[in-house]
Amino acid sequence: MNFGAVVDVMLKPGIADPQGQTVERALPALGYAGVEGVRVGKRIELTVDAGTPEEARELVAEMCNRFLANPVIESYNVTLL
Amino acid sequence: MNFGAVVDVMLKPGIADPQGQTVERALPALGYAGVEGVRVGKRIELTVDAGTPEEARELVAEMCNRFLANPVIESYNVTLL
Repeated sequence: MNFGAVVDVMLKPGIADPQGQTVERALPALGYAGVEGVRVGKRIELTVDAGTPEEARELVAEMCNRFLANPVIESYNVTLL
Repeated sequence: MNFGAVVDVMLKPGIADPQGQTVERALPALGYAGVEGVRVGKRIELTVDAGTPEEARELVAEMCNRFLANPVIESYNVTLL
């Protein structure tokens, strides 16, 4: 059975996020004051073949731990659709 | 008032996604068959200062149209937290 899954990968709190900082610094000059806490991460959508939703979630989490995310500096969140 | 917002930016359907294709092609060799439709996009978290939730959403959508996303090839989705 096919399950759609979404993986959100974000840098852990406390890990510097240069991409987010650059966006945040640029916004005031572009006319958007009052924007803060910008963090930029990845969103990965995929379809996985598994027997049960639990199996699908486990499979995706395993892929995240192994190579979709870097568990040292990134946290991830798996959502089944 | 501060509103937390999440912006998901994905390439539109039909637009080639080389990053997703590369991940998809690599997975079988890494032991994960049965994964398909891999698409890789961006997730942007931010806090915006606005009067009302509607105003916050509109402000973030405007930022997306102007520079957080490329509306020609990307679609975005704004979620207020």
